[in-house]
Amino acid sequence: MKTLAVFLESEVPVFRPSDASVARLAALLGDGWRVRAARDEASFLTVLPEADAAVVWTFRQEWFASAPRLRALCTPAAGKDYFRVTPPPGVELRYGSFHGAIMGETAAACVLSLSHGLFQGASLMTARGGREAWPRPFLAARARRLAGATCAILGFGAIGSAAARFLKPFGARIAGIARTAKPRPAWFGPEDATFAVSDAAAALRDASFLVSFLPSGPETDGLVDAALLSLLPPGAFFLNFGRGNCVDENALAAALASGRLAGAVLDVYREEPLPLSSPLRDAPNAWLFPHSSAFSPDYVDLCFDELSAFLKSW
Amino acid sequence: MKTLAVFLESEVPVFRPSDASVARLAALLGDGWRVRAARDEASFLTVLPEADAAVVWTFRQEWFASAPRLRALCTPAAGKDYFRVTPPPGVELRYGSFHGAIMGETAAACVLSLSHGLFQGASLMTARGGREAWPRPFLAARARRLAGATCAILGFGAIGSAAARFLKPFGARIAGIARTAKPRPAWFGPEDATFAVSDAAAALRDASFLVSFLPSGPETDGLVDAALLSLLPPGAFFLNFGRGNCVDENALAAALASGRLAGAVLDVYREEPLPLSSPLRDAPNAWLFPHSSAFSPDYVDLCFDELSAFLKSW
Repeated sequence: MKTLAVFLESEVPVFRPSDASVARLAALLGDGWRVRAARDEASFLTVLPEADAAVVWTFRQEWFASAPRLRALCTPAAGKDYFRVTPPPGVELRYGSFHGAIMGETAAACVLSLSHGLFQGASLMTARGGREAWPRPFLAARARRLAGATCAILGFGAIGSAAARFLKPFGARIAGIARTAKPRPAWFGPEDATFAVSDAAAALRDASFLVSFLPSGPETDGLVDAALLSLLPPGAFFLNFGRGNCVDENALAAALASGRLAGAVLDVYREEPLPLSSPLRDAPNAWLFPHSSAFSPDYVDLCFDELSAFLKSW
Repeated sequence: MKTLAVFLESEVPVFRPSDASVARLAALLGDGWRVRAARDEASFLTVLPEADAAVVWTFRQEWFASAPRLRALCTPAAGKDYFRVTPPPGVELRYGSFHGAIMGETAAACVLSLSHGLFQGASLMTARGGREAWPRPFLAARARRLAGATCAILGFGAIGSAAARFLKPFGARIAGIARTAKPRPAWFGPEDATFAVSDAAAALRDASFLVSFLPSGPETDGLVDAALLSLLPPGAFFLNFGRGNCVDENALAAALASGRLAGAVLDVYREEPLPLSSPLRDAPNAWLFPHSSAFSPDYVDLCFDELSAFLKSW
């Protein structure tokens, strides 16, 4: 019998397992595993000495000394920035890779909303939004279709690819950009292409949307700067669901203020929570979210599906 | 040599053919047709006597007397309410059927936006929207995924089906409702079903979204009333891209005010423009658009593609 310690408290309710989700995980794991769920750090530390695996949001380096049996330290997070620990020999760090289904859909929703002017248009006619009588010229000037529009996906890994697959049925052309050009996925059409970051000028020349899923790290720091944004045609949109370190936020705010960018959806920032003094808070046509693109009621269950498949393969 | 009279002026720029679109239409029709585009009623009436076909937004009954050669009177509109004329024998009335590509995408964009709480969430963090520091609980309480969610499509014709097809790749379950149950389309999965309106209770029992594309007419008048809305589970969303006569707007406003409906996107109304005194203007979580779901820069070209194919088949 092995023991899995679960300690996933969070300020975000959908990131916190319900008792039902814990019971579901135990059922998925079956007889070989005992699941011990902790709701606070003290309880977790009493379970840790017997844990063969643990799934947590954060972990402290010194806790490894109390975890002699631990072979796998897992987190639901996709970002390598979540664990700031060096595991002892024999302990594997594992990150979630189930986020594409959620974040890809959120990203597609935001691309479509920008494309149709929905963020600006949806409240115009209401009492709270201005009570405009019949703002047809406003919407007509902003409505686009995705058919034939190029969506450049910066960071073409599991999540970026999932987003692109959601956009494809609308007729979007995909330009998938990664550090080195990825192989063409089987679902690409002849109009789609992959690019290396060094070839960004070719990828962005016709792009109506630049959607970033870049991870954090020194190699992505400030990659979306004034020079890169200037490769986009006038009237393009920028969206960021990756990490905020990638973006020169002053350059982005300036591109929005000048009107060269038609709009932006931002979910991540250099500093989180985004400071109230950030120029992005005042930027026109910037639609800001609080690092919420992975929010979904089934977040924990998707995580536990993946985790249980891994643990049962031991 | 036949003559096509084009008279498509509109307050909506994307509903008005550019010179380039008229030239493109002439090229599509080729040598057998002469295209005569009018920018005002007087010019149109000078062209009408020689017209074998005409494409217009509106037409007056008495104009038929000046159109001895006319065999087809066409409109881009999909709604049969656009022509309020009785054509003389030998004159066919034709409506556009190209709208699904545009309106289906708009509808999918709105379903996704509602599903993720985007309309409410997008402005919260900005100076214009409240400058909330980091509204994660707000978004977490509203974020859904379409996977497994039932989308009931009321009016399962060409446009409703097109919308359903856009929703299908997100994992939605489709409940297609029509006056009499339609045959199952080839792209349905085992989880999808068609229903007759008389079976609405079964179709709506599990529906997270009810999306109407119903046409106008006595048979749809007031069909979406308090009784029908009460068949939806609490927390469902209603969207209307068909015609406004279908909806009891007071019942809808009451369902929004009570919180029983989680939200609505409305594009059409009983009276258009929607009166400033309408209770919908004040309804919470109602996102109102000015009959704009078909707005797209390629609207006229899609119309002309269809029109030219028809005229060349003569």
